[in-house]
Amino acid sequence: MFVCESSDGDTRTSGMKPYQSLLLTRHDVSSLLKFEEYVIAVEEAFRLHAAGKATKPGLLHVDSTEGEFHIKAGGLKLRKQYFALKVNGGFFHNAARFGMPNIQGLVVLFDGENGYPLAVMDSREITSKRTGAATAVAAKYLARPDSKTATIFGCGVQGRIQLRALTSVLPIQTVYAVGRNQSKLKDFQREMSEELGLRVELVEDATIILKRSDVCVTCTPSRKPILNAQDVAPGTFIAAVGADSPDKQELDPELLRRNKVVVDILEQCALVGELHHALDKGMRREEVHGELGEIILGKKTGRVSPEEIIIFDSTGTSLQDVASAAAVYEKALEGGRGEGFDFYK
Amino acid sequence: MFVCESSDGDTRTSGMKPYQSLLLTRHDVSSLLKFEEYVIAVEEAFRLHAAGKATKPGLLHVDSTEGEFHIKAGGLKLRKQYFALKVNGGFFHNAARFGMPNIQGLVVLFDGENGYPLAVMDSREITSKRTGAATAVAAKYLARPDSKTATIFGCGVQGRIQLRALTSVLPIQTVYAVGRNQSKLKDFQREMSEELGLRVELVEDATIILKRSDVCVTCTPSRKPILNAQDVAPGTFIAAVGADSPDKQELDPELLRRNKVVVDILEQCALVGELHHALDKGMRREEVHGELGEIILGKKTGRVSPEEIIIFDSTGTSLQDVASAAAVYEKALEGGRGEGFDFYK
Repeated sequence: MFVCESSDGDTRTSGMKPYQSLLLTRHDVSSLLKFEEYVIAVEEAFRLHAAGKATKPGLLHVDSTEGEFHIKAGGLKLRKQYFALKVNGGFFHNAARFGMPNIQGLVVLFDGENGYPLAVMDSREITSKRTGAATAVAAKYLARPDSKTATIFGCGVQGRIQLRALTSVLPIQTVYAVGRNQSKLKDFQREMSEELGLRVELVEDATIILKRSDVCVTCTPSRKPILNAQDVAPGTFIAAVGADSPDKQELDPELLRRNKVVVDILEQCALVGELHHALDKGMRREEVHGELGEIILGKKTGRVSPEEIIIFDSTGTSLQDVASAAAVYEKALEGGRGEGFDFYK
Repeated sequence: MFVCESSDGDTRTSGMKPYQSLLLTRHDVSSLLKFEEYVIAVEEAFRLHAAGKATKPGLLHVDSTEGEFHIKAGGLKLRKQYFALKVNGGFFHNAARFGMPNIQGLVVLFDGENGYPLAVMDSREITSKRTGAATAVAAKYLARPDSKTATIFGCGVQGRIQLRALTSVLPIQTVYAVGRNQSKLKDFQREMSEELGLRVELVEDATIILKRSDVCVTCTPSRKPILNAQDVAPGTFIAAVGADSPDKQELDPELLRRNKVVVDILEQCALVGELHHALDKGMRREEVHGELGEIILGKKTGRVSPEEIIIFDSTGTSLQDVASAAAVYEKALEGGRGEGFDFYK
């Protein structure tokens, strides 16, 4: 038996003992929550943040041997007050050296009113899906609704998720895939065209196809700009997904200075996002149009003309993690999934 | 079967699958590591930190509903490269409202070379014991070796651990217990005099007995000074243990300005320790004598005269957590303890 909510959604049944935390495997997590459910959870998380109903999110990077640990922590009042801490190791030689994932970790979900660890779960599914979900939400508000052509820089796991995210909210028909590794690009082309029934073209020179793209996603580990201001066509929506630490960068800072910039969390983007580099080049924080949540909430406008270029600086936030982990946890409780473990015994 | 080290202590056996993380309950943790073993682990952790062999420790506080989460993260090269993340909820109405611990949480121990989560364990035992262990190590280097009289401010769980820590390294015979709650003080007196065979006296006015104390520990949740500079006798060793967030304070800043100050980690004490308040009152960082690890390593002197007052500012560090969690983990592997769980399945 694991800890479970009383039927009225209130914190916990009184006298409930023994305490148990719910353990969820990667498969549990992936089978419990559909992508559309991530999108709903993530949109609600940004909305609550903008409405002042989230705790101030925390971010911590700690270096390790040839790698690093990224820690994201934050709380949200959903059916109950939740707090989640995600720790992801980023070790970019793992696949080659150990046959292990390069990015891996755990999410610990707590009761935000008393600190009890409700669940410990694999983080990979949540990290990738909630990142895609943010792009889906941003594209819904910021891309032209008739967007048919998408360019994807970086065609790994996240590239696939980003493309699925775009197709979930936009009538995408043609995809330009940009990347260095030809064999990976071909895999992407075959898999995505089959799965989504789209025309996927592999591209070496992105400058040509960018002029024909309605939407562009960058999701690479790049440390210098791969997308130049002069190459982007009017009306494009750009989701910059790769940068999540101060040394990562995908966009020409000029792109941000000249156009409408929407961020996931302003403080965080100023620290580790594309915004960070633009601020270094003289852009001011006040020039940022707003946070995604403010647009969802209607405090700020979304797209107001088919001509404007809009950039979404997506650093990945604890808001997305806590909302997703809470949704997974509630689904697991409903379905009797996972294993209970009493850490307090 | 859980992940296990190869016999040469090297990272992991090749082809080892399925991955399993080791889950350890509070009882597992408390039965696996003796207090003396915490002292050894903690002394080594501070030594490695001073020798530049620890990763830069990270600290994060996130507020929640009527409580907060404290996150500490850091890595150490021991038998292997470890990284640990501890998240503790601090909810000071828990005991009264829910019959739950006020401070509770988990430690996640990772392989520092590839980010694999080696173990998830209850944090309470580690938090309290490693805090006591730091005092034991500090007292060994900084108290007069003939210290016979100790004053303890705050006689809860940590007060007991602190007293045990002092008696493990000093010939303490008499203890003055200072606190507000008379019934808790009497419990402390009865339990500690029985367990340690000491004379324990309950004290209302600390000013008198401080002049007769060789050692003084403050471990209260106080938010203003409870120990004044003019009350402390020459030669006293003071361990200030309570302050671990910017709003907590136990010592008169004058005490720090006038005397020899040793810190656990300088950066952290400047942020959340007693030092933080002294810096606010005009003390300069350069006036701090050194970090505990520098004294252990011999880079800085310890006590050089029986007259000097020495203050140890103990904020509690991830160094202590990672060293303790690694020691618990290695002992569990040796003894076949704990339960395996495959989060990656």
